Amino acid sequence: MSDPIYLDYNATTPVDPEVVEAMLPYLRGHFGNPSSDHLYGQRAAEAVARARGEVAGLIGAESDQVIFTGCATEANNLAIQGTARARRDRGRHLITSAVEHPSVAEPLRRLAAEGWEVTVVPVDNNGRVEPGSLEEALRPDTALVSIMHANNEVGAIQPIAELAHIARAHGVPFHTDAAQSAGKIPVDVEALGVDLLTLAGHKFYAPKGVGALWVCPGTPLEPLFAGGGQERAFRPGTENVPHLVALGTAARLARVRLEEEAPRLRVMRDRLYRWLAKDIPGLILNGHPDERLPNTLNLSFPGVDGRELLGRAKDVAASVGAACHAAGGPAGGVLGAMGIAGARARGAVRLSVGRPTTERDLERAAAELVAAWRSLTAVQVPPGTPRTDR
Amino acid sequence: MSDPIYLDYNATTPVDPEVVEAMLPYLRGHFGNPSSDHLYGQRAAEAVARARGEVAGLIGAESDQVIFTGCATEANNLAIQGTARARRDRGRHLITSAVEHPSVAEPLRRLAAEGWEVTVVPVDNNGRVEPGSLEEALRPDTALVSIMHANNEVGAIQPIAELAHIARAHGVPFHTDAAQSAGKIPVDVEALGVDLLTLAGHKFYAPKGVGALWVCPGTPLEPLFAGGGQERAFRPGTENVPHLVALGTAARLARVRLEEEAPRLRVMRDRLYRWLAKDIPGLILNGHPDERLPNTLNLSFPGVDGRELLGRAKDVAASVGAACHAAGGPAGGVLGAMGIAGARARGAVRLSVGRPTTERDLERAAAELVAAWRSLTAVQVPPGTPRTDR
Repeated sequence: MSDPIYLDYNATTPVDPEVVEAMLPYLRGHFGNPSSDHLYGQRAAEAVARARGEVAGLIGAESDQVIFTGCATEANNLAIQGTARARRDRGRHLITSAVEHPSVAEPLRRLAAEGWEVTVVPVDNNGRVEPGSLEEALRPDTALVSIMHANNEVGAIQPIAELAHIARAHGVPFHTDAAQSAGKIPVDVEALGVDLLTLAGHKFYAPKGVGALWVCPGTPLEPLFAGGGQERAFRPGTENVPHLVALGTAARLARVRLEEEAPRLRVMRDRLYRWLAKDIPGLILNGHPDERLPNTLNLSFPGVDGRELLGRAKDVAASVGAACHAAGGPAGGVLGAMGIAGARARGAVRLSVGRPTTERDLERAAAELVAAWRSLTAVQVPPGTPRTDR
Repeated sequence: MSDPIYLDYNATTPVDPEVVEAMLPYLRGHFGNPSSDHLYGQRAAEAVARARGEVAGLIGAESDQVIFTGCATEANNLAIQGTARARRDRGRHLITSAVEHPSVAEPLRRLAAEGWEVTVVPVDNNGRVEPGSLEEALRPDTALVSIMHANNEVGAIQPIAELAHIARAHGVPFHTDAAQSAGKIPVDVEALGVDLLTLAGHKFYAPKGVGALWVCPGTPLEPLFAGGGQERAFRPGTENVPHLVALGTAARLARVRLEEEAPRLRVMRDRLYRWLAKDIPGLILNGHPDERLPNTLNLSFPGVDGRELLGRAKDVAASVGAACHAAGGPAGGVLGAMGIAGARARGAVRLSVGRPTTERDLERAAAELVAAWRSLTAVQVPPGTPRTDR
């Protein structure tokens, strides 16, 4: 039996074969500690410096503004806890959106438990923040705004340039979690006008276990932990050299391939949608029709539970939402914030395509999902009810 | 030109080829997010569970007591900041030793800056803590004791079982940083009687960028950061699956090979010492003669600066102390705490052997170090001074 068709690229991507090849020398002969003075150390230090340049290059930044971390969750916490605590004397008010990933929502909840006030700005039916609501939420004691670049569940792209401009006009630093957008759409720190930006390696074909925080010079920041002084003491600990080499290589590939890859993904995704919509009357697209990641398709299948549908479609590997929530978390938080509830929320499935996805994959996946939906809805039809649409 | 002879295994080890092989499937086909419900996720989750068991096995612990982290620095910070903050209502006094790694000393300094009191117990001339001095330092408001298992610079092994017993008798949790001892000497949490124990993958032939904290059930602990709930919410963030597989494999190899490897390393190290001592009159061994890691040789070369000596011995890759200090940190902190200063401290070099070290390597290294020492001491002799010993 072959592996299921992977349509869960928003949960994690495979490591690009070119990235694996780039890492291997640093898992073999080039094993030095970058802090060591000798040749082994120098080679490792040079590899880390190169990777830093490549990551900076992906987001239009300077090398020395990039802090490597062990994951995007750590980068988000460093941005939020680090900036909030460093600015605690200026005020204890924070702003975020209603559709953030737990790695943003949870550190904010932790600060709230310590006495900070957190304003959660709403999103519209398409999952986007209305700039006017940020304007209203800002206060003289606001220490930080954190709003994601693109949503992991429905792919909605936030108007970050506009939002960051508003925050900055009030003198408030702006953090954006670009874990889900980098490699899928252009991410340029100058164009976005943000102060802190998070990257997650395993969302753009680097391995799991590496992230980065870009910090605009002058942004106040306290480290989460202390030690030997690596990463300018903002993130001490012996560097994960193979994963940093991987992150750098993946960043270079993402930059080089974006222009070709984004339209290809969009075409494939839209084809999948048409195939499904043709055979499934009442199928609903969740998320913004245009301002949306080119690889993301969040669909509500009528009359079924998303989890049951995926359980039935054994040859398709996808999810009903963020992987982080899969294990017992509150499903539908993002959809709920978009005003989507009841049967439509229960029937939601996230299908996300990626670099290795082929048209043949999507044909098979569509057939499998349609068959699964038909078998489930057939079961649910009470006996004797006339069946018309199949 | 071939690579220099690597004698810096205490700074970092190469990844064992068997460990690399074990990782590769998780950098290739088995790339799922362990939180995903589908087959890709299940495979990754199973690999993480297996690795957790293997790491627990190395230290005689239970799987569910192991928290994976991005590095040992993070594990030390989680232990220290996490337990201290969780016990803040019980008291704000902490105890450590004078020879800790910066990843222990710095978080303690950070807590001191927040108003905690930190007592630093001294070490003797061999680098060991006298149990009586811990007994004296303990107070009713002591929240945590953190003393390393084995020292990274001189290899001194602390009497942890005795120290932990004293702390526990006072109801105070005991943390030990076993980054440098695991894989070199037996590390068993029951035998040591500790409450928290840190492991560093890259010191026992796993890659850099992965560590673990063992936590005895019932020990209070606050996470450093918040997010999706991985690692029982003590260390959220998508798991670094390939590195966890590596850590598990390295832990298994360390456990299986220890009995054979430790005596082999000790014999080789002692041979290197004899070769050097034969040709270098006045060479001094730093650290305990017996209660010392079997692979570590800290030597003071008479009449030279250790850095200059290593600069001259181009075919030997070693260091004058911890790699974390190489880049401008205060050298000799550990030696200073042992009462070693002046010319003896300046002449110190750390030579550490490892699994791939051969007798041939050590013959060449000894010849190179002797030649470098001779050339430096020859230069330093003022013109006209009679030269007797060469």
